[in-house]
Amino acid sequence: MSKLDAALAHADAHIEESLERLKALVRIKSISTDPAYAGEVRKAAELLSADLNQLGFDASVRDTIGHPMVVAHDTAADGPHVLFYAHYDVQPVDPLNLWHSDPFEPQLVKQASGETHIVGRGTSDDKGQLLTFVEACRAWKAVHGALPLKVTLFFEGEEESGSKSLRPFLEAAKDELGVAEVALVCDTDLWNPTTPSIVTMLRGMVAEEIEISCASHDLHSGMFGNAARNPIQVLSELIASLRNPDGSVAIERFYDDVKELPADVAALWQRLPFDEKAFMAGAGLTTSAGEQGRSVLEQTRARPTCEINGIIGGYTGDGFKTVIPAKASAKISFRLVSEMDPDKIRAAFRKHVTDRLPPDATVTFHGHGGSPAVTVPSYGPFVAKAAKALQQEWGNETALIGSGGSIPVAGEFKRILGLDTLLIGFALDDDRIHSPNEKYNLSSFHKGIRSWLRIIASFAGEA
Amino acid sequence: MSKLDAALAHADAHIEESLERLKALVRIKSISTDPAYAGEVRKAAELLSADLNQLGFDASVRDTIGHPMVVAHDTAADGPHVLFYAHYDVQPVDPLNLWHSDPFEPQLVKQASGETHIVGRGTSDDKGQLLTFVEACRAWKAVHGALPLKVTLFFEGEEESGSKSLRPFLEAAKDELGVAEVALVCDTDLWNPTTPSIVTMLRGMVAEEIEISCASHDLHSGMFGNAARNPIQVLSELIASLRNPDGSVAIERFYDDVKELPADVAALWQRLPFDEKAFMAGAGLTTSAGEQGRSVLEQTRARPTCEINGIIGGYTGDGFKTVIPAKASAKISFRLVSEMDPDKIRAAFRKHVTDRLPPDATVTFHGHGGSPAVTVPSYGPFVAKAAKALQQEWGNETALIGSGGSIPVAGEFKRILGLDTLLIGFALDDDRIHSPNEKYNLSSFHKGIRSWLRIIASFAGEA
Repeated sequence: MSKLDAALAHADAHIEESLERLKALVRIKSISTDPAYAGEVRKAAELLSADLNQLGFDASVRDTIGHPMVVAHDTAADGPHVLFYAHYDVQPVDPLNLWHSDPFEPQLVKQASGETHIVGRGTSDDKGQLLTFVEACRAWKAVHGALPLKVTLFFEGEEESGSKSLRPFLEAAKDELGVAEVALVCDTDLWNPTTPSIVTMLRGMVAEEIEISCASHDLHSGMFGNAARNPIQVLSELIASLRNPDGSVAIERFYDDVKELPADVAALWQRLPFDEKAFMAGAGLTTSAGEQGRSVLEQTRARPTCEINGIIGGYTGDGFKTVIPAKASAKISFRLVSEMDPDKIRAAFRKHVTDRLPPDATVTFHGHGGSPAVTVPSYGPFVAKAAKALQQEWGNETALIGSGGSIPVAGEFKRILGLDTLLIGFALDDDRIHSPNEKYNLSSFHKGIRSWLRIIASFAGEA
Repeated sequence: MSKLDAALAHADAHIEESLERLKALVRIKSISTDPAYAGEVRKAAELLSADLNQLGFDASVRDTIGHPMVVAHDTAADGPHVLFYAHYDVQPVDPLNLWHSDPFEPQLVKQASGETHIVGRGTSDDKGQLLTFVEACRAWKAVHGALPLKVTLFFEGEEESGSKSLRPFLEAAKDELGVAEVALVCDTDLWNPTTPSIVTMLRGMVAEEIEISCASHDLHSGMFGNAARNPIQVLSELIASLRNPDGSVAIERFYDDVKELPADVAALWQRLPFDEKAFMAGAGLTTSAGEQGRSVLEQTRARPTCEINGIIGGYTGDGFKTVIPAKASAKISFRLVSEMDPDKIRAAFRKHVTDRLPPDATVTFHGHGGSPAVTVPSYGPFVAKAAKALQQEWGNETALIGSGGSIPVAGEFKRILGLDTLLIGFALDDDRIHSPNEKYNLSSFHKGIRSWLRIIASFAGEA
């Protein structure tokens, strides 16, 4: 029996105890956004730290300007050094009346499919995912006495409330954490219930608020209508000018730094089981409004976009008011990919707007932050090994995929620690994260633990 | 001393008491578009009715399907019968933070010019104007005991919210109100602070609210951005499509029933003292955004327009939310001239929108009323007498002019009661009606009262 097989067998034999530890962690109400629960957040950090010390890690709770971090090292081995990240804080539970059971008293609910749901706040996001790695380490150590590679664990308690301490903490702990060779983050989904995924691309973002002003005060459209510049009209024309008829973004040089997907990645994406019609139907839509000639997968994960997230101007209450308002404003965001520079995109957008302003219209820009896309080389040694290990556990080829959303910690690891991040997770899009009746599949938890054992063995040259 | 001179002297001597009555009326928050203020609207009607009964009118508050009407008769005299109309409801006051004083606590603010501003919501539109006629009647009666002509007063409480009861009320009260020989409406401007006007053309209006729906629920732009149809984008493109680059309206057949001004009217308008630059500068603007090749006077009084009066969609609070909303909506109005048919224009607009809807976007239309333009023969006997009386009060030739605003009641008086309407008002275009810090000049109020005394005397053959 290989070292890996022995560890897998131990994990299988002790899954009930792993589940009990997950339940104990879920019972702690570590809601980070509500100051009333600060003591519970700390209690979760202390439980994790104590358990890791007992497991032989050098673990401690680190104070920050917000909620504490947990850092734990076990770096005696000769193998490569991995930094594993997850978060132990959770979202609020309201509306409580929509929960079928106490959010903090986890229930095992058997499904008709044979699957078992572990129901409770944080079971999926992110306590269950966090423990998959801890339980893998526990199993390996239980069987073999020591880990086969260097492990640093880094758990955050503010992921659901803005991560305000993350950047200063990483800056301060740069030497301690930056010695790792690769970061592993467990906060993402499987591709589908039987297909594992590694997210290797994350879109970046630029957020802008613009306000168009024309007249010095609101005007009566009976008196000024036709002659007065209408800022809603101006804003609408500007927004209309942002997209070409083919769905692409019409800002000059917008696509300059956008790279096409490498041919092998593009080929992999085409092989992935993905039902465009079902995906769109989930939003009540039938047709992609995005760039013609691009698949929905590409559009949402590998292509940049410009979206209007909010607009307001004039009279918006009940009834009617024949006003020509003095101002109108919109919130506009851009998702970025590959080498797109947030500052360049912001400047290009502002130039696009300024160049098109008609007489008597002025614009005020207000930036709401920006971050570049994060790309992990798809075929670096760690990615290749992890992809193969995951395939062995799940039986299907690993999806190396992009994510349309932003996971800021991966960008910070790159920027501050100089580390590439492999985003590997076992959640599913029906886990109801952030919603009532959040659940994690027992198979996500169990096969998640087994997946990490395979990845640990693979990175250490034991498989 | 003539009867007129005696009444004028009385009005002058009692202007302070007239002002106090205006203040009392302004203090009532009769915002008709907001159901929360229905009680205040009624309170204003009751105050007026009680005062008129005390003055010797046979006055009553008449219930409707919406806000009440006030009708008052004093028809003992032998002279001609006039129907005087004004409205006692007002516009909402938002944004409240732009007011320099409580909109419902009228302030007298002395200006460097020597003029005094009466500041408050409705001081100009239309409570101040309404009272000019009531105070004229009061002065005449105080001095002479009885009016020299038959007067019916008719006050509306829904003018600022679509006048939904007006038509059915006039149909039902056709015999009671239609016995008058001419209608007088006080809801318009002086030509300039020293030049009176009688409006003989009024633009009509069509008001529409449109809602664009795409996805079945709000989406996350990280997950769906690029692929999902964005209703704010769709709405903006629709709005952009409503205007041509030359400022004209781009709806098909929109101008079919628009007539050019008759040559003599056009010539009169060219002689009128009107400073385009100063008019635009009063709104903080420098350049007309309307139809190229048309004067601002034509654009705002003799040409139709399409204006966006309000727009809302997505996240509009503080900060940023990367949502792709399910819906976005706008309030859009059209000003009509000459023979334009509100129903035809509404249908053409709806067709314009429907023809341009992209896949996955649906539209809901909600009509907010419509009325055709109204033209009064410029040289009838009442017009001639009123023009002369006004010239005597103000010292300058009366401008017979078109108005850019819509005063649907004039159309209804013609259609239902068979009455021509003389629109005579004393407001000024810097009165900030519908806007924060609305004001009415004390001289508008005072000389307005005097103007009606002269008109009453003239119609009755007393001057």
